[in-house]
Amino acid sequence: MKRIALFPGSFDPFTKGHEDIVLRGLRLFDEVVIAMGHNSRKSRYFDVNEMVQKIEYTFENVDSVSVKLYDELTAELAKKYSANYLLRGLRNTTDFEYENSISQVNRHLNDQLETVFLITSPEYASISSSIIREVHKYGGDVSDFIPYEL
Amino acid sequence: MKRIALFPGSFDPFTKGHEDIVLRGLRLFDEVVIAMGHNSRKSRYFDVNEMVQKIEYTFENVDSVSVKLYDELTAELAKKYSANYLLRGLRNTTDFEYENSISQVNRHLNDQLETVFLITSPEYASISSSIIREVHKYGGDVSDFIPYEL
Amino acid sequence: MKRIALFPGSFDPFTKGHEDIVLRGLRLFDEVVIAMGHNSRKSRYFDVNEMVQKIEYTFENVDSVSVKLYDELTAELAKKYSANYLLRGLRNTTDFEYENSISQVNRHLNDQLETVFLITSPEYASISSSIIREVHKYGGDVSDFIPYEL
Amino acid sequence: MKRIALFPGSFDPFTKGHEDIVLRGLRLFDEVVIAMGHNSRKSRYFDVNEMVQKIEYTFENVDSVSVKLYDELTAELAKKYSANYLLRGLRNTTDFEYENSISQVNRHLNDQLETVFLITSPEYASISSSIIREVHKYGGDVSDFIPYEL
Amino acid sequence: MKRIALFPGSFDPFTKGHEDIVLRGLRLFDEVVIAMGHNSRKSRYFDVNEMVQKIEYTFENVDSVSVKLYDELTAELAKKYSANYLLRGLRNTTDFEYENSISQVNRHLNDQLETVFLITSPEYASISSSIIREVHKYGGDVSDFIPYEL
Amino acid sequence: MKRIALFPGSFDPFTKGHEDIVLRGLRLFDEVVIAMGHNSRKSRYFDVNEMVQKIEYTFENVDSVSVKLYDELTAELAKKYSANYLLRGLRNTTDFEYENSISQVNRHLNDQLETVFLITSPEYASISSSIIREVHKYGGDVSDFIPYEL
Repeated sequence: MKRIALFPGSFDPFTKGHEDIVLRGLRLFDEVVIAMGHNSRKSRYFDVNEMVQKIEYTFENVDSVSVKLYDELTAELAKKYSANYLLRGLRNTTDFEYENSISQVNRHLNDQLETVFLITSPEYASISSSIIREVHKYGGDVSDFIPYEL
Repeated sequence: MKRIALFPGSFDPFTKGHEDIVLRGLRLFDEVVIAMGHNSRKSRYFDVNEMVQKIEYTFENVDSVSVKLYDELTAELAKKYSANYLLRGLRNTTDFEYENSISQVNRHLNDQLETVFLITSPEYASISSSIIREVHKYGGDVSDFIPYEL
Repeated sequence: MKRIALFPGSFDPFTKGHEDIVLRGLRLFDEVVIAMGHNSRKSRYFDVNEMVQKIEYTFENVDSVSVKLYDELTAELAKKYSANYLLRGLRNTTDFEYENSISQVNRHLNDQLETVFLITSPEYASISSSIIREVHKYGGDVSDFIPYEL
Repeated sequence: MKRIALFPGSFDPFTKGHEDIVLRGLRLFDEVVIAMGHNSRKSRYFDVNEMVQKIEYTFENVDSVSVKLYDELTAELAKKYSANYLLRGLRNTTDFEYENSISQVNRHLNDQLETVFLITSPEYASISSSIIREVHKYGGDVSDFIPYEL
Repeated sequence: MKRIALFPGSFDPFTKGHEDIVLRGLRLFDEVVIAMGHNSRKSRYFDVNEMVQKIEYTFENVDSVSVKLYDELTAELAKKYSANYLLRGLRNTTDFEYENSISQVNRHLNDQLETVFLITSPEYASISSSIIREVHKYGGDVSDFIPYEL
Repeated sequence: MKRIALFPGSFDPFTKGHEDIVLRGLRLFDEVVIAMGHNSRKSRYFDVNEMVQKIEYTFENVDSVSVKLYDELTAELAKKYSANYLLRGLRNTTDFEYENSISQVNRHLNDQLETVFLITSPEYASISSSIIREVHKYGGDVSDFIPYEL
């Protein structure tokens, strides 16, 4: 049976930290589905469809990675894709406390769902989507923080 | 003199984790007043009056627990109810850092006010009101996270 | 029924931070038993009997505080003294993680035992027994950190 | 060469904790520029120009402190003022994780920029701008938390 | 190619928390090698050979789990067993900070080695080997904390 | 007046992380005195005199850095060297909580003494002296973690 993992997030934008986790996740899983949560009522900084394209372009030579938009419970989405794993990166203790809660609830909602954590590589651990938005808003150069061109 | 504690929060919604703290708090205090902060300018997910009813129903057989809406400083509310204690649950280090600040400020505003902490039981430590709202919004089953029916 | 709390620790030495927790604990409990863990095989820096005397002297005018040496499980000791509460201070997140574990295990060993936490007052939060030992060893003045004279 | 540090923040409002860091920073730096981030699209609780005046008044006898409004990247602002240092206070671990990320990104954007941290004095560590706003909104007395009169 | 993971530790003693991680790890890996670090100069509380037997007994019906003693670098041991993964459990933020450091160093020593983290199930998160030793030393009942009989 | 900082530690061994803090500290201070705590009763892994030589060799071309052995309170040593600053690196939240306590106590013992923190560069944040000792003990290659040859 194929080991399929969801890598859920809002990816506003997708960062080199995210890319790091996906690529390292491929050593564990046969397929990684990048699941981009999108709710039409929530505003984003980067256009959702453009971001899907950027991510697809990033992994265009990696068959085992796909990108999907979703607007439902992650635990439900996992069933649709026969994904028994959620893949998540941990950068620091704030992440840990948040992910700890989410993972227990996801397991409660779908007891087949195991959340697997990798610690973000040190060179990417300081990058967050919110910092990139802030830098980009003021015209700063964010090209070192993302794995594609804007 | 009766030992009266306020248990303040926005309770949007009230969770089994909150219930756990109230019930264990009753071993320390003669009365626990569940003080539900409500400000008409702040929007809630669950209706405030309905939530009061749900909480009252939860504790309908527990005389020493009452529910009050308030829209003022917690430190002031405590004086009104002759409450010398605030009761708070701690789930993790993020909670700790937040509660640490709040409790020092409350003590400064009302030097009779002691904040007393219990650590949330492990089975409820992953439950937060915000996660429940997220699950409920997407139609997920939250009945295991709350001590009443919605 | 009297509310009796144990305040367990090795108190090598007892600090102003410990005193802060005991005095504030008296607002919650009718009696606080300072339970000084002592194991003849473990070496201490400050003599155990001398420390008992210093603590007794510190609280000589406070009838509701007593000091006991013990060499057994805290959860068992609590039964002997009809203590249904453990009183503990939290200084920071490192304390929190440690105390979280200990309190769950104590509750497992004695399901009548509730651990109640107060956050150490800011002016005492940096004081630890180990720092005091280090300062004292090098002849530094520790009188501001302890509530008695050495 | 003069050692010039920026002390960036939104200061809504400026607190005694901020004042503590600025004054202690003067032992390290020849000049401290309090850089108040202001974006006309973001709403504030305290008026931005009034707050500038309050801060200027606070340091009116301290020549080496100045106050500037800015609406650009902090790393860019630093270049304008020939500031090679950012001065930041740390109150707790939540601050630490946040500041850790920001400081790495700032250093990436401007490799001449070193972020220097002081730990907030214990008596001010519980004060945050957001708590002050909350207390003030409800008519509570915040005069002990700020170094000027409102 | 088989996915083989080492689960390294001193296991003094092996706990239900460890068992939880091994069993959940089997959903990710084809084989899990429980690698028990043992150094004749370091004293243990539980006999090393007896503990190996207890762990083997715990997993006697699970072919994909084996137990090995080792006294070398974990990163080297992994090469011997063609293990490309280290499996580790995270209970709290203190664990996270420690494991973060170790995992980066292991990856540096063996760049084929990926450390994969699962968060310990809440019911086991408070159990540590050191607490079990403390309880056992004083004759307390530890049977609920370990998956075998002592 | 010269700005002189002590950089205290046991340096068993001195790491690239330590070197990072010293070199970045030189942008703040006119002189950095690496103060190596040494107590003949405490055993070390690396010989104390050899380590002093390694550190001196590391900074042989940097006149503003010196190395001193000491066996007294850091707060007292600072007075001897007219050092008004302690320089410390922060790697993570565990470091933060520890350093927070130490810095308050040092300031209490010597109110002229300000502890200044830099956050360790990400590439060195996982390196600790204790991990290096562990790797070295088992014959692993530690040359990437230290700025000199062993």
